[in-house]
Amino acid sequence: MDPEAFLDLANQVVKLKMFPYFDIAHSVLCALHVREDLGPGAQAFSRKHPMSCWLSTMLVVFAGGMLCNGLLGEPVLAPLKNTQQLAVATVVWYVIFYTPFDIGYKAAKFLPIKIVFSAMKEIYRCKKVYDGVTHAAKLYPNAYIIMILIGTLKGNGAGFTKLFERLIRGVWTPTAMEFMQPSFPTKACIVASVIFVLDKKTDLISAPHALVYFGIVIFFVYFKLSSLLLGIHDPFVPFENLFCALFLGGIWDALAKLFGRGGNKDEKADAKKKD
Amino acid sequence: MDPEAFLDLANQVVKLKMFPYFDIAHSVLCALHVREDLGPGAQAFSRKHPMSCWLSTMLVVFAGGMLCNGLLGEPVLAPLKNTQQLAVATVVWYVIFYTPFDIGYKAAKFLPIKIVFSAMKEIYRCKKVYDGVTHAAKLYPNAYIIMILIGTLKGNGAGFTKLFERLIRGVWTPTAMEFMQPSFPTKACIVASVIFVLDKKTDLISAPHALVYFGIVIFFVYFKLSSLLLGIHDPFVPFENLFCALFLGGIWDALAKLFGRGGNKDEKADAKKKD
Amino acid sequence: MDPEAFLDLANQVVKLKMFPYFDIAHSVLCALHVREDLGPGAQAFSRKHPMSCWLSTMLVVFAGGMLCNGLLGEPVLAPLKNTQQLAVATVVWYVIFYTPFDIGYKAAKFLPIKIVFSAMKEIYRCKKVYDGVTHAAKLYPNAYIIMILIGTLKGNGAGFTKLFERLIRGVWTPTAMEFMQPSFPTKACIVASVIFVLDKKTDLISAPHALVYFGIVIFFVYFKLSSLLLGIHDPFVPFENLFCALFLGGIWDALAKLFGRGGNKDEKADAKKKD
Repeated sequence: MDPEAFLDLANQVVKLKMFPYFDIAHSVLCALHVREDLGPGAQAFSRKHPMSCWLSTMLVVFAGGMLCNGLLGEPVLAPLKNTQQLAVATVVWYVIFYTPFDIGYKAAKFLPIKIVFSAMKEIYRCKKVYDGVTHAAKLYPNAYIIMILIGTLKGNGAGFTKLFERLIRGVWTPTAMEFMQPSFPTKACIVASVIFVLDKKTDLISAPHALVYFGIVIFFVYFKLSSLLLGIHDPFVPFENLFCALFLGGIWDALAKLFGRGGNKDEKADAKKKD
Repeated sequence: MDPEAFLDLANQVVKLKMFPYFDIAHSVLCALHVREDLGPGAQAFSRKHPMSCWLSTMLVVFAGGMLCNGLLGEPVLAPLKNTQQLAVATVVWYVIFYTPFDIGYKAAKFLPIKIVFSAMKEIYRCKKVYDGVTHAAKLYPNAYIIMILIGTLKGNGAGFTKLFERLIRGVWTPTAMEFMQPSFPTKACIVASVIFVLDKKTDLISAPHALVYFGIVIFFVYFKLSSLLLGIHDPFVPFENLFCALFLGGIWDALAKLFGRGGNKDEKADAKKKD
Repeated sequence: MDPEAFLDLANQVVKLKMFPYFDIAHSVLCALHVREDLGPGAQAFSRKHPMSCWLSTMLVVFAGGMLCNGLLGEPVLAPLKNTQQLAVATVVWYVIFYTPFDIGYKAAKFLPIKIVFSAMKEIYRCKKVYDGVTHAAKLYPNAYIIMILIGTLKGNGAGFTKLFERLIRGVWTPTAMEFMQPSFPTKACIVASVIFVLDKKTDLISAPHALVYFGIVIFFVYFKLSSLLLGIHDPFVPFENLFCALFLGGIWDALAKLFGRGGNKDEKADAKKKD
């Protein structure tokens, strides 16, 4: 491919207008997520508790914005002030849950449609991560951790509000904490945030910004599609294992075990006491 | 009744000063609510955990203000800065929980007193809904949903903070989520907020503002008293059922069932798998 | 001791620089607290969920600041913007959880080291209570309750965020509410906040500010050390019992019981109904 044309394409991706098509794709997948999270009783629940159903869907759709606003001392409800986005999300919620003969839900679950929407959602996600990092960098120009945190939360807010979203529906699952077992989107958002921070704040990345952005979009879409089509769920696992072995005790623990002493002693003693 | 005199009365209700009598009525009913929520062990609890008891009562008394401040990015603690209101609430809490021979509690539960206080609380509630809508409209002039949300939360904040109020007392009841089964005050506050928004933002309501306000006050007081005296708990139910049948799947679900196919198929399949 | 020299010493304590030594002491004790809260499975947990472990440790280290910011409408994440403090806390977390053969943890638990760190943490705590009271007094010059609340929360934030800290680790213990059974540090922070408020806002305390501050530091350190070395856990208990007997129903309840009537009647009736 011609590099000039490639850069042109990248520039167009950066400037892509999100409303309304990408918002629709995002809302559809969020509503599907809520419906699938409800399990086989989803339809019955949506008939009995429409308000709770609507609120938890809205919380998922606007999760990133609300969460980041809450953490940055801005109004939590502010994302709802965009009436157009809210109307789109409400219509999508209605279509997914209440269309006659469940046409809306079935159409959204139809694989080709789902693939297109998923790809669009990943493009949207990339924009949100970038916006989050930029916003945090404006507020705290030297706080890299805050930039990465806000980028990650804006990119995958729904993962972190899962507990509250379920609570609105009267279900409480404290062990479903995203920090315990970060999902692939969370890890991808962390990596993307780190790259955006490096791009913004250091000279380590010499490529033009549009290329970096486009690269992350491709990375997001590629792994989403391979997860949907090929069942590859987490390409980060080998790197994590290496990192844990080197820095988070893996090797030392093995050594300590080998010599039959060291860090685990206390635990053994504690365990014995309990017996 | 003379219309002129009626309008005069309405204008007086609009300008009614709330402090201190209406604050006392509100605090008394809040403290009663906490005490009744504690069940038969209320007295023992209040002796063993006075701090937790005081804090959860204050949370109920100032629930609406705190909740709305939290959602609008304003200081959550700000409602406590009004030292006079706080003092009134604390005295009321003390009287309800700790007077010798439980005189305070018994007096507050005495039906005629409770009726007067309930009526006053509804007048106060109407003012809070109106203040909430006005405040939200100032911040987000075009976000109708935010106005309705804030109006509702300010009017019936205690319903929505019930989970946290109980958490302060060490009790966790995730299924007691107000959104799941909205109580009558919540629904009434939603209706009142919608009417205030229509009155403020559109020309649909041609009556003078004072009359609209007075009408809502009467509506609140009337249904509170009929709930207290006659046991009528929720006059909205028939309208809700109609709305659900028309728009939230009721009719279509019935049709689908009739033809033995449609939306419930997946669920049946899922249910079968489980067997 | 020469009073002049004593005042000089007090003045020096007031102006003590906290970073980095006091921050290190504070972080070490916070990380130890997290590790001990995890129980015998701490090492295994830190290997399996490093992210959740890091986040909950950071939450404990910066608990006071985050909590108070959240309640005062300031950005919750702001305490993390101090990159140096964050780096210190992260290094300490790493040393406590991941050093080979658990050297870091064992060293930190070594009594003489723990005593020194505990004393330093109490000096730090006093500064935080004072800063909290001052900050709240700037925002709300007449709201004594807010000053006391913020002082207490800033001084012993970790006690109040325990629920959330555990939630990040996937554990939910709603009954471990600090307000239910306030621990000694909480009570000490309340007393210190009250004294600082009296010192700031009234003329009741005629001693110079440095002396008041120094007195509280000594009080904090003294009781922390006596708790560590002598096992005296709560010197407030007799005063509390007296207060409860006089004002929170103790005497009246006893009288009522004596005469076989009064406040407990309803409860007995309720209890009977249940049988």
